[in-house]
Amino acid sequence: MAQQRFEDLGIGTKASESRLRLLNRDGTFNVRRKGLPFLKWFSGYHFLISLSWSKFNLLILVAYVAINAAFGGIYLLIGTNGLSGIDGHTLTGRYIESFFFSTQTFTTVGFGKVAPEGMAANIVASFESLSGLLFFALATGLLYGRFSRPIAKIIFSRNAVVAPYQNITAFMFRSANQRTNQLIDVGATVTLSRLEHTESGERTRKFYTLDLERNAVALFYLSWTVVHPITESSPLFGVTKEQLEESDAEFLILLKAFDDSFSQYVHARTSYKSHEVIFGQKFKGIIRAAPDGMTELDLGKIHEFEKEG
Amino acid sequence: MAQQRFEDLGIGTKASESRLRLLNRDGTFNVRRKGLPFLKWFSGYHFLISLSWSKFNLLILVAYVAINAAFGGIYLLIGTNGLSGIDGHTLTGRYIESFFFSTQTFTTVGFGKVAPEGMAANIVASFESLSGLLFFALATGLLYGRFSRPIAKIIFSRNAVVAPYQNITAFMFRSANQRTNQLIDVGATVTLSRLEHTESGERTRKFYTLDLERNAVALFYLSWTVVHPITESSPLFGVTKEQLEESDAEFLILLKAFDDSFSQYVHARTSYKSHEVIFGQKFKGIIRAAPDGMTELDLGKIHEFEKEG
Amino acid sequence: MAQQRFEDLGIGTKASESRLRLLNRDGTFNVRRKGLPFLKWFSGYHFLISLSWSKFNLLILVAYVAINAAFGGIYLLIGTNGLSGIDGHTLTGRYIESFFFSTQTFTTVGFGKVAPEGMAANIVASFESLSGLLFFALATGLLYGRFSRPIAKIIFSRNAVVAPYQNITAFMFRSANQRTNQLIDVGATVTLSRLEHTESGERTRKFYTLDLERNAVALFYLSWTVVHPITESSPLFGVTKEQLEESDAEFLILLKAFDDSFSQYVHARTSYKSHEVIFGQKFKGIIRAAPDGMTELDLGKIHEFEKEG
Amino acid sequence: MAQQRFEDLGIGTKASESRLRLLNRDGTFNVRRKGLPFLKWFSGYHFLISLSWSKFNLLILVAYVAINAAFGGIYLLIGTNGLSGIDGHTLTGRYIESFFFSTQTFTTVGFGKVAPEGMAANIVASFESLSGLLFFALATGLLYGRFSRPIAKIIFSRNAVVAPYQNITAFMFRSANQRTNQLIDVGATVTLSRLEHTESGERTRKFYTLDLERNAVALFYLSWTVVHPITESSPLFGVTKEQLEESDAEFLILLKAFDDSFSQYVHARTSYKSHEVIFGQKFKGIIRAAPDGMTELDLGKIHEFEKEG
Repeated sequence: MAQQRFEDLGIGTKASESRLRLLNRDGTFNVRRKGLPFLKWFSGYHFLISLSWSKFNLLILVAYVAINAAFGGIYLLIGTNGLSGIDGHTLTGRYIESFFFSTQTFTTVGFGKVAPEGMAANIVASFESLSGLLFFALATGLLYGRFSRPIAKIIFSRNAVVAPYQNITAFMFRSANQRTNQLIDVGATVTLSRLEHTESGERTRKFYTLDLERNAVALFYLSWTVVHPITESSPLFGVTKEQLEESDAEFLILLKAFDDSFSQYVHARTSYKSHEVIFGQKFKGIIRAAPDGMTELDLGKIHEFEKEG
Repeated sequence: MAQQRFEDLGIGTKASESRLRLLNRDGTFNVRRKGLPFLKWFSGYHFLISLSWSKFNLLILVAYVAINAAFGGIYLLIGTNGLSGIDGHTLTGRYIESFFFSTQTFTTVGFGKVAPEGMAANIVASFESLSGLLFFALATGLLYGRFSRPIAKIIFSRNAVVAPYQNITAFMFRSANQRTNQLIDVGATVTLSRLEHTESGERTRKFYTLDLERNAVALFYLSWTVVHPITESSPLFGVTKEQLEESDAEFLILLKAFDDSFSQYVHARTSYKSHEVIFGQKFKGIIRAAPDGMTELDLGKIHEFEKEG
Repeated sequence: MAQQRFEDLGIGTKASESRLRLLNRDGTFNVRRKGLPFLKWFSGYHFLISLSWSKFNLLILVAYVAINAAFGGIYLLIGTNGLSGIDGHTLTGRYIESFFFSTQTFTTVGFGKVAPEGMAANIVASFESLSGLLFFALATGLLYGRFSRPIAKIIFSRNAVVAPYQNITAFMFRSANQRTNQLIDVGATVTLSRLEHTESGERTRKFYTLDLERNAVALFYLSWTVVHPITESSPLFGVTKEQLEESDAEFLILLKAFDDSFSQYVHARTSYKSHEVIFGQKFKGIIRAAPDGMTELDLGKIHEFEKEG
Repeated sequence: MAQQRFEDLGIGTKASESRLRLLNRDGTFNVRRKGLPFLKWFSGYHFLISLSWSKFNLLILVAYVAINAAFGGIYLLIGTNGLSGIDGHTLTGRYIESFFFSTQTFTTVGFGKVAPEGMAANIVASFESLSGLLFFALATGLLYGRFSRPIAKIIFSRNAVVAPYQNITAFMFRSANQRTNQLIDVGATVTLSRLEHTESGERTRKFYTLDLERNAVALFYLSWTVVHPITESSPLFGVTKEQLEESDAEFLILLKAFDDSFSQYVHARTSYKSHEVIFGQKFKGIIRAAPDGMTELDLGKIHEFEKEG
């Protein structure tokens, strides 16, 4: 049974020696890659789309200044008498005027107070305005791509609990959509990872996909408490908190939902290590019918639990 | 049986006390969120993509005026003698000229009648044209994103009916594509939500996914009457209109289809409360073969039903 | 059996009286909608994305001229002395200059030979450049959206055949990817639609999803001959060409594939009416190993068939 | 069994005579299409999106120069006295000035040093700036589309191995995500293609989808060794390396995964010919727990294997 449901998540058993969590709370991975040259693994798009906003904006600004500094230098090199309207008497003055002429060309604002007259300046300027259009195609495409990138803001309860459920117990955690947009067609996958003794006596990391009371809900209306009933066929059957910790257990959580605003599927990930699983507690209610008839969801209390019974 | 098909839609039973409908007719949810700080739940993209067109356009206009008012002020502050072509003698006159110069820089129209000359004005202008390009990246991206957003325009019959079907009765509602574009691979999910007495005598809200005669059609060619046959295994078996109302029943409808023009899946939602379910009536025909051989679909009559028999 | 596989495609039986094909050869529908006000069913995006290229380009040009004609009129109305550089002596001359100034503002080219000076002209010009940016956001977004729209170019054999297959016969048609791009994860659905006599003696249109030898192929490498083996459980079992025609049969074909270049699923549709189904013929081979070892696919012969045996 | 799992991948048996591999190592197909007119199979989008970067950039540059050369010619034809600021005395000089004025109009930089004055020049210029906006809509759309195109960078081991696995042997190959972005919901399909003798004694190419130990992993965390256990029901059961080569066997590999950065599914393909399958070797470990607790993946060694046992 359990063997059939074994899944390796693309994780070799060698990784099992690490005591670091497999998945960080924010869904990122705890892994380092090496052995490939930079160009093989680096992706400009991935880098620029996941950069922080402050760094991204800074990068745009720095690139903008650097490119114009370069073009300014070129206009100076080919002679600023190729530009009408330049009246600087010093080299620095002429460079500054070239620089600003470059910005006006690169952004296609083209005031025309300074304008290319000579052949060389005209060639450079016509190439620069082309470059500017292409540069801003990338910069603005990325800007909008970052802004409109479909990212789910799913909040997960800080702890999972093992609590009575019907006549048995169950492993549960709680999740909710932080945003006011509408998520539908929501699915969850829960994978248990733990160290086990193999027949030959070695210790190796095993993975089990846990059966859920339901693994999909049609609407992410309020909160969703994902429930794995600990039946006899569950790998958690009869496991105590001590055994869970001793086996360095980790629960890997994946959520998938269709986002109505983005018209796309979004994913969220998190994990619970054994010490984040609370035994004998249940989650506090966070839903109530408000006096005006509306249903109210108090996300500030999503992490709260209380003594069972 | 019924228990197995139980689905909670991410809705806690506490919400069951509310007598408001779970899903509004237009598919929006009847829920209020609280307990999270603004930045945790607010999403600029979601806000701007779902704003009404008039508010969106107004917002663009207001932002445009405000930004240019600010930049106009900066040019005034650093001295309008940094701008060639300014000839205002009063502060107001110079501010107005600065403001319009700013609009010409921000939109990169750059007539050049007024143009930056001094160092400070040039720095601000080159930064402003950069800002303008980035601002319009967002504004125009959102404009086009709103315009091309894949939204299904599915029309649902105002009422559902419970009518004879083969030798039994069935719960039915009618849907159609309002638009002339082609929807394919259409699927429907119908969930019944109602109050029930638990073993312990409490009243709690239960959810049932209803079995459909067919839950997918290959083409949304004309109209589609979605049919739940009320067999013995149906939670509606033997239920009268009075019992339906007493249990505060609500039928939650989800439709999913692939839109050929958007090349994406689109979703539509609605719900029927018990008082919107008509017993003993059937839908009037709205399809006829026109004299020229074409098939004609009269969507104006989609809501109409008539006495059965 | 057959009853269980019945599917109505969202098509009511009333439509059955029409002798027009349900699906045109190019995949469009043979249906007319009425009864809804224009704004309910019209979608600007759907209209503009599916317009022919020549009409789309003409529309852009006409809108461009019309908008500038209007703005040109406004500049004339508020007085062309608000514009520096206007030197027309006649009203027509000044209108022409206003018109061209408007185009320079609307496209943000802004030569500056004519430039706004007065308050009113400046207000209009700054609003016009904003409008221009928003107009071109839509126009260029649509232009690129049309250009990059994921449309499959699947070629279907002009005829389907009913030919010997293993020890029985089978209904077959042939399809291929016209383009050199790579389609993967290809799936097919074949639905038979025909008139049948109901128990009560009426004639009604029935639909059957036909079982395929295989309904998906991993790669659309060369051509794919989709095969429905006519076993005893097939609704085509024992049906002659005459019976097929008499029942006004039509085979509705849907293909779905993942397009590697668009990174999206694409769909193609077609249909075969009974007179397009050839009995006792098989498709000619169109694949051969070229002398250089390459596999060669001759799409020019995809429609060709030959006497079986 | 095997027959049921037969899949033709859209490949006719005639193609079987070719000894070239079906799928190249980089996932492209070994096929040539003919028989269709150019416009039927050519897709501008597919061509431009899959062109190499250097060719794409060159094409933009060439188109830019060519268009401006043409418009420059038009301005010359209608007379450069329609342009203010032209001061060339020779035809060549005036053409050069027209050319650069054209670039300024086409990119909407519009310095204004040269500006249209006459009716004809104004008409051409207003049409050119419109054309420029539409041209750059395509060029910059394609540029960003190419940059942000969701392409998986999956690395496959150079060889597949047939090695002991539990108590039997298994066909295995290794794959990993080259990039640092996160791939989830990863699925694999392995198809065996080989020549077989039919009952009538002919030699024909057959295809088998191989059963995998697991055909999906939830996270592409580290590397994933895809395993086909050679059980009695496997078409590889009892097959020697010589038999594999003699039957011109090829293993076609398809991988599919959801890319977190692109928010889209990505695909990767490769194939192993019989001579690329090593018997009796197993893959070397490439995962280790680094001293700091991180898991380390050495992709430089993904191709390495060692003597089994």
